[in-house]
Formats: sequence, C-alpha cells, structure tokens
Amino acid sequence: MNEAAGEIDAALDRLLPIPEGGEARLYEAMRYSTIGGGKRLRGFLVLEGARQFNVSRQAALRVACAIEMVHAYSLIHDDLPAMDDDDMRRGKPTNHKQFDEATAILAGDALQTQAFHVLAGEETHPDPAVRIELVRLLARAAGARGMCGGQMLDMLAEQAEEPMNEAQIGRLQLLKTGKLIEFSAEAGAVLGKAPPAQRHSLAAYGRELGAAFQIADDLLDATASAEEMGKATAKDAGAGKATLVSLLGLERARIQAERLVEQARGHLDSFDSRAELLRRLAGFVIERRN
Amino acid sequence: MNEAAGEIDAALDRLLPIPEGGEARLYEAMRYSTIGGGKRLRGFLVLEGARQFNVSRQAALRVACAIEMVHAYSLIHDDLPAMDDDDMRRGKPTNHKQFDEATAILAGDALQTQAFHVLAGEETHPDPAVRIELVRLLARAAGARGMCGGQMLDMLAEQAEEPMNEAQIGRLQLLKTGKLIEFSAEAGAVLGKAPPAQRHSLAAYGRELGAAFQIADDLLDATASAEEMGKATAKDAGAGKATLVSLLGLERARIQAERLVEQARGHLDSFDSRAELLRRLAGFVIERRN
Repeated sequence: MNEAAGEIDAALDRLLPIPEGGEARLYEAMRYSTIGGGKRLRGFLVLEGARQFNVSRQAALRVACAIEMVHAYSLIHDDLPAMDDDDMRRGKPTNHKQFDEATAILAGDALQTQAFHVLAGEETHPDPAVRIELVRLLARAAGARGMCGGQMLDMLAEQAEEPMNEAQIGRLQLLKTGKLIEFSAEAGAVLGKAPPAQRHSLAAYGRELGAAFQIADDLLDATASAEEMGKATAKDAGAGKATLVSLLGLERARIQAERLVEQARGHLDSFDSRAELLRRLAGFVIERRN
Repeated sequence: MNEAAGEIDAALDRLLPIPEGGEARLYEAMRYSTIGGGKRLRGFLVLEGARQFNVSRQAALRVACAIEMVHAYSLIHDDLPAMDDDDMRRGKPTNHKQFDEATAILAGDALQTQAFHVLAGEETHPDPAVRIELVRLLARAAGARGMCGGQMLDMLAEQAEEPMNEAQIGRLQLLKTGKLIEFSAEAGAVLGKAPPAQRHSLAAYGRELGAAFQIADDLLDATASAEEMGKATAKDAGAGKATLVSLLGLERARIQAERLVEQARGHLDSFDSRAELLRRLAGFVIERRN
C-alpha cells in the first residue's frame, strides 16, 4: 500500500501542477489536502482491481487519482466549521485552518471538478464509452444518492432526538463511505471491460469491505488515541452519535466486521493469484491501528 | 427567454425528484436554488446553440439543466458567510439562510455532481464521445482554471492593497463567469457535431457575450436598486472593489459593453435566421434592468 501511495502521490503531483497567477493559491490548497497523506485505500482498490484485467498502470493511476480527489474534497468540506469543525486531519491542520474557510470551500469544489476532468481525459482510456461509464458511476457514488446524501443523513442523525437503529446506521454508512469504496473496487473492471459477473463480484467485494472498514473506523474512534489517528477521536461518543459499536458493543461489532471481511474475500473466489493483495487488504482494514 | 426558463424548470423538476428518507432535505435545498429563479441565460444559450444544428430538444434541455446546476451550485457557495456572505438571492433568502450552512455546502456539492451525472446519461446523446466531450469541456470551464480559479482571484483582489488594472479585471471575469458562458454557447455545437468553424464561432460569441454581460452586471451593481435586482447592490463600491465601471466610468464602460455586443453578433454572421434569438440576446444582456 505504501508503494501504491507513492505512485498515486507522484501522479497527483503531475495532475495538479501549480499555474502562474493568483489561482496558484487555490492549487496549493488543493494539493495540500490531496498529496502526501492518507492510506490511499480507495486508490489502492482501483489499482488492484485494474490488475485483475491487465489494465495499463497509467490508466489505473488516473482513476485512482480521480477517486482520491473526490475523497479529499469530501474531507475538506466535512472538516469545515459549519460541518464537523475539525482542526486536525492526517496529522496536520485541516485545510481551512492552514488556509482559510473560503479557500477551503473553493479547493473542495475545484477538486471535485478536477476529478471529472481527469476521468474525461483521453489518457484515461481510448474508448469514450469506458470514460463516460466511469463518470456516470463516480457521479452516482458521490452525489445526493451516495456520499453527499450519506453526509446529510449523518448531520440529521446528530440533531435527531432518537438514536438510529442498526438498519439506519447501515444505510447511512453505505451512502456516506460505502458507495465510493464500491466504485473504487469496481472501476478497474470498467477500465478492463471485464465480463459483468467479474465486475459485479468486485463491486460486491467493495461493498462488504466498505462496511467492514466503517466498523473498524468506529472501533478506532472508540479505542485509539488522537495521536495514533492523526485526528480527534472519541468524537462519536462525545456527539452522542449511535454507531454499530455503541449499539452492539465492542466485541459483537468486531465479530460483525470479521464476518464482513470473510464475505468480502468470498467474492474474490473466482479470481486468481493476482487478487492476493485484495484478499489481504480485507484483513488489513480491520487490523489497522490508524 | 421566459418560455425557455419554464421548459428548463420543468426539466430540472424531473431531474431532481425528491427521494424517500433523510436525503429528502438535501434535495429540497438543491431544488430551492435551482428551480424557479434566475434569467437562465446559460440554459437559454445551450438551447439556442443547439437550435442551429437541429439537436433534439430533450438532449439540449439536459445540457441546459447541467449548466444551470453548476451555476446554482456556484451561487450557493459564493453566498456563504465565509465567501460573499449574502442574505438575498433572486429575491429570496440565500440557501444557507433558508436551510443552514452545512446543508448549503452539501447542496452545492451535490448539484455539481448531479450536473456531471446528467451529462453522462445516455439520454443526453447516443454517442458516448459527445457526452465525454461535454464532461471534459464543463469540467475545464468550472474548475480551478475556470470558474473556481476566477473566484479565487476575486477573493484575493478583495484582500489586495492595490486595485486591479484593466487586464487583471478582464482575466478575472473571463475565468469567473466567462468560461461557463462560453461553454453554454458552445455546447449546442458539440451536441450537434457541428463543423469546427461553427463550433468556434459559437464559442467566440459566448466569450464576447460573457464579457458584455459582466460589464452590464457591474453597471447594474453601480446604478440599480436592491429591489430591482433581488439581491444587495452597490456591493463592489462598498467593498472597494475595482471593476471596469470604477476604472473607466459609467459612460466608457457602457461603450465598451456595446462594442463587445457588436463583436459577439459578428461571430454569428455565417449563421442563418435560426440565430435570430442569439443576435437579439446580445442586445438584451446590456439593456436588462435586473
């Protein structure tokens, strides 16, 4: 994963060159939250999904960068004072703390635009039908019925008088983080024009992985220190927010995450040894410490 | 234009159906700032550009809606307290006043995503190469080297000690509003697979029109009442912001706008009577009172 993260950083650096003129500040803010930080789970999924179908590394890296741009934009906006009001992210000041709120809003906006621009570029795939399918899938995963919709549910949950039940939490997390992780796992199959069955298997793998990842995140929020995480922790309990961990308890939540990991691995049964890193990744997401 | 605005509103209504669940609030915020307001200059340009090449009305309307969604998203974010901090827009409370800041940020984000989703849909054009070209052009016009970059320049100009010169103002306005208006004029030619010369003529028409429109906007800001405009006026002078009007004076600014309108019309010389509304639109943008 570290190796892939390095490759993704180098590609992001090329895709976000600082221009002449006053827009330079906007690019600096975009680069600040995109390059050199994070686990690159989503980008790694794109690269490993693409590996199953011998997709060119350049094409896979561009799609990995697009998804990391969308992820970075969502974090910049989530951290804003009007949203989660966070000061630290990935061990450094959040974008609006490092720059200012207006610049952070614009940097997030421009990163989302840039993600679609990267997908639309010819270097992503010679076939326009493949590129437009990636645009369509990413827009569905990131929009009001995906990530943005999940974020809205999350805000409403914080204001609600009654805590969410298990089904509501599952739906919130599927929208807020699951859809984008599912897209990341599926994108390589789109790039490789894979048969529908294999594409659906990778998407299903991404869905289960995303759900496991979210429980692991909640477990870390409940048990890890802010120092380990590079951001504030124990925020869910502090906000009185229901998570699967608060609902099921640590032990049962862990068991459920392990079950999801097994299911995720099961979707890779028809894949050969090239899927080894994807199989191992499933275990990593629930064993990680940050 | 009123007729086109009505058609665009009906199409937006179909493209933004309110779903079940908590995301409904997000859709309400998206619809609040998108449907039923504004002159629809950008959408109208798409429809009239498409008319030159006998593009189907359904296709043209989808692209018109996509551009109006991007325009609406940019207004929602521009009005935020951290940006221009405006309370009124199109004669009603701004999005964050009607809902709240977090919802407004999310609604803007989701509108941008939805615009790309609409462009990517098969109903926009049967040929994926046309759809991906529209995505590429819109992303270029709206991103860090277009609208978002212009917005950044605008913010820096407000903080700068020295006022901008004419060239700097021209570049700021080209990025901030010109690029999107140029895209709107060009999009119909892309949908109609027009010969390059005609596509370039429409784009050039859009560029000149956009520049004239911006001077007209500055003239209105300097002379019209808030009641006529449905939003606060005299903001540029209040912010000590240099515009072509403050730099050249009312009279010379008016003359320059008229010259731009003539140049815009000149780019339509090779078009037939179907371009009549585009020719008349050029005059309208500098004669309007709101």
